[in-house]
Amino acid sequence: MAAIDLNSDLGEGFGDYRLGDDEAMLGIVSSVNVACGFHAGDPEIMASTFAAAKRKGVAVGAHPGFADLQGFGRRLIPYSTGEIERLVAYQIGAAMAMASLAGHRITHVKAHGALANLAADNAEVAMAVVRAAKAVASELVVLAIAGTEIERAAERAGMQLAREIFADRAYTAAGRLVPRKEPGAVIHDPAAAAARVVAMLKAGAVIAVDGTRVPVGIDSICVHGDTAGAVAIASAVRNAVTGAGYAVRPFAP
Amino acid sequence: MAAIDLNSDLGEGFGDYRLGDDEAMLGIVSSVNVACGFHAGDPEIMASTFAAAKRKGVAVGAHPGFADLQGFGRRLIPYSTGEIERLVAYQIGAAMAMASLAGHRITHVKAHGALANLAADNAEVAMAVVRAAKAVASELVVLAIAGTEIERAAERAGMQLAREIFADRAYTAAGRLVPRKEPGAVIHDPAAAAARVVAMLKAGAVIAVDGTRVPVGIDSICVHGDTAGAVAIASAVRNAVTGAGYAVRPFAP
Amino acid sequence: MAAIDLNSDLGEGFGDYRLGDDEAMLGIVSSVNVACGFHAGDPEIMASTFAAAKRKGVAVGAHPGFADLQGFGRRLIPYSTGEIERLVAYQIGAAMAMASLAGHRITHVKAHGALANLAADNAEVAMAVVRAAKAVASELVVLAIAGTEIERAAERAGMQLAREIFADRAYTAAGRLVPRKEPGAVIHDPAAAAARVVAMLKAGAVIAVDGTRVPVGIDSICVHGDTAGAVAIASAVRNAVTGAGYAVRPFAP
Amino acid sequence: MAAIDLNSDLGEGFGDYRLGDDEAMLGIVSSVNVACGFHAGDPEIMASTFAAAKRKGVAVGAHPGFADLQGFGRRLIPYSTGEIERLVAYQIGAAMAMASLAGHRITHVKAHGALANLAADNAEVAMAVVRAAKAVASELVVLAIAGTEIERAAERAGMQLAREIFADRAYTAAGRLVPRKEPGAVIHDPAAAAARVVAMLKAGAVIAVDGTRVPVGIDSICVHGDTAGAVAIASAVRNAVTGAGYAVRPFAP
Repeated sequence: MAAIDLNSDLGEGFGDYRLGDDEAMLGIVSSVNVACGFHAGDPEIMASTFAAAKRKGVAVGAHPGFADLQGFGRRLIPYSTGEIERLVAYQIGAAMAMASLAGHRITHVKAHGALANLAADNAEVAMAVVRAAKAVASELVVLAIAGTEIERAAERAGMQLAREIFADRAYTAAGRLVPRKEPGAVIHDPAAAAARVVAMLKAGAVIAVDGTRVPVGIDSICVHGDTAGAVAIASAVRNAVTGAGYAVRPFAP
Repeated sequence: MAAIDLNSDLGEGFGDYRLGDDEAMLGIVSSVNVACGFHAGDPEIMASTFAAAKRKGVAVGAHPGFADLQGFGRRLIPYSTGEIERLVAYQIGAAMAMASLAGHRITHVKAHGALANLAADNAEVAMAVVRAAKAVASELVVLAIAGTEIERAAERAGMQLAREIFADRAYTAAGRLVPRKEPGAVIHDPAAAAARVVAMLKAGAVIAVDGTRVPVGIDSICVHGDTAGAVAIASAVRNAVTGAGYAVRPFAP
Repeated sequence: MAAIDLNSDLGEGFGDYRLGDDEAMLGIVSSVNVACGFHAGDPEIMASTFAAAKRKGVAVGAHPGFADLQGFGRRLIPYSTGEIERLVAYQIGAAMAMASLAGHRITHVKAHGALANLAADNAEVAMAVVRAAKAVASELVVLAIAGTEIERAAERAGMQLAREIFADRAYTAAGRLVPRKEPGAVIHDPAAAAARVVAMLKAGAVIAVDGTRVPVGIDSICVHGDTAGAVAIASAVRNAVTGAGYAVRPFAP
Repeated sequence: MAAIDLNSDLGEGFGDYRLGDDEAMLGIVSSVNVACGFHAGDPEIMASTFAAAKRKGVAVGAHPGFADLQGFGRRLIPYSTGEIERLVAYQIGAAMAMASLAGHRITHVKAHGALANLAADNAEVAMAVVRAAKAVASELVVLAIAGTEIERAAERAGMQLAREIFADRAYTAAGRLVPRKEPGAVIHDPAAAAARVVAMLKAGAVIAVDGTRVPVGIDSICVHGDTAGAVAIASAVRNAVTGAGYAVRPFAP
């Protein structure tokens, strides 16, 4: 039986603030990426997120981002690659400790927001992220946007790799995400998103808005949980992939 | 030949800010306690501090404090013991990662500022600090203020323990530090501080302002480096203890 | 026709985070207290909050709190009274500027969270808050919890004063709020809250859980908007007071 | 008798951190630009800086910067012009309040770091800064780098304007600062800096590294105080301009 992972970002609150329906998502996905205190998250939220994931049997990873709470890690702060290596290392270490405290263990790392976008395009930044992970915990799986520099960096570094596609985002013929500002960039219909994911899994490719198939490895499907609509898409995707005969389970060993 | 450790707080800057003469202190002490980003420190400063300690062959530890950059971790933020456990765990994990990135390895943990004072007096807080360390890295040595609750907590938890006295602080007849606000609380004369340290080492006791000897285990001497005067004291202490026949080396194995 | 003000805290988000249904509250209350960037709020949120209040014709005030985003200003940070005076002054100035930018003008100041609780009980802290307001903008109305030290401080300083009671909080026989942790401290039933407010307005007194009436001046009723239930209470209170013949309008001239 | 202003950035610490010798600079300059809590500064430091300037009879201005303590306001955070307008307004308001509390009054505004550089080159950003100042306090003088967009924006907005040149920075033939990374960009010799300032004042022009004279209005000379060398330059500049017959006094009325 073929298997696929579903992953989602979790623990994205700060202090009294919360984003997304973490409880719902833990019932849907097999892996979660936990914010590490720089763009979101704090020790309280990290601890309760890792504990909840442990109870639900969901795999956990570090989700490092830029030190930018106000911009939620989505602003392109002009860091050097060295600074990026160091802020990623710091956050992975913090996540490992908080997971340990909850009796859990992180098994992957995935970059967040502006850092993820930069690492997708920039080979040096991608390598900085991977170097940090390797130095801190070489056994981690690097969760990469399929077909990007972060995938190549993980391969070059000899790190384990998992590749994700997005359930709710349209792709260009070059296999990249259509920018959020363009019409049709985000898919809002659960049924459409679910059918599309199954088609891409079967094709072993991302399917662009113009029908182009760009072959990529697919180990995980990224789903969001920050709105009620997003949870509905996540749920539809899970039902569709299990209906298509896939077992939903973590990519990490 | 008897051995003693000298320890000092390092890496206490943030961004462009710096406190203390870290370079000088790395030439004097055998162990340093590195700020972890909550009361001071950031990934850049942590990385360069661990790298410098590695070059100088100085042992390193995590120096967690309250999340209070504005108060430098010296204000008593009303955290629960659970919150303290979690913020200590987070900071130890971050320090472990940053040390790894620098090719070094942290071997101890020491609480900072208001957290250290609270843990010295409050058994539950002391236990929270120790529990965090044990969950994250049970091999760490807990560096405790000699004769306080943090020492007892480490013993109860079965963690390795090192006990420190202060070179530049006066003690009460109860073996506790004279509060900073009282006259004579801080010793400014390098020769006096150095002679006093040697006397306490030989006595196996802290020597109070009234001459009372309070027997304690002494594995390390805490020296400061945040002023030119402090560096002079640290240097005088090192000379005095080596002159008295002690080898200066880390307590950590 | 008698008049009464309804006030609520607004603009309590940060970055991408939001708390409460600000839009709904602006349709219910006559005055809002706007977070100033220390416990919550940032220039973006302040600007849009002041602009929305201007559009709705709702009076605005500064709502200064402790510099504690993580604790939402509810933790008792050990500030000196001098520090409190200065952080209140800073926030009032910032709020005045942001209101100006939106074409609005702040007409009152109300302390938030732990600062408000401390100022209610501690005459020196209350005076520090009032001194800050007087130094920065002596024309501001001080919005005080009825019957507390902040009321007395405003009177001593010769500042204009408005006194508030709480729609959804039980009172002790001493006229103080029942601590949140005690059973019955918070009133969840809109009809009960509304009836109680009208009774207190008519009595010119807060009515304690044991029926004791503690006479106080009442210029405003504080309602909350951070949950759907809270908005329902606010709405019920407005309907009840207008039904009882009161005009709902700002206390500030 | 001709008059000239000397200005310097002050109050650039945070919490326990300090940058520069503020006391020395207050004895040298006629105007100071006070950090407002975003890139540096906090209510404590602002209050003591305004109070010290008041005692010394030195004019004060707001020195707003990006919300970037870690990068000291020198990183180009990707703000929209609207966001810049709002963060400048906030900081001017805060500075006005803190000056009031100290019995002083701010009379100018000068952008800091990356914000200043951006506003020098980008007409829309320059206009956003000026709009913020005009909305909050239209009587303020805009202190602009001579010959840049910020000067033109102040003129267009009908705001009072003062134009500054730099004592310790080399100029290009286009009248712009030589980037710090290039050799010779920063002048370290007090005598050279002082002589150059007097020559530029007499020429009514900045004098480029190749000798080109670029005519500009000069109302103030910016001197730095963050190192011992910088204080020596500031002092030499003051002596030179007074020796050349200029009265050193604030540009602000």
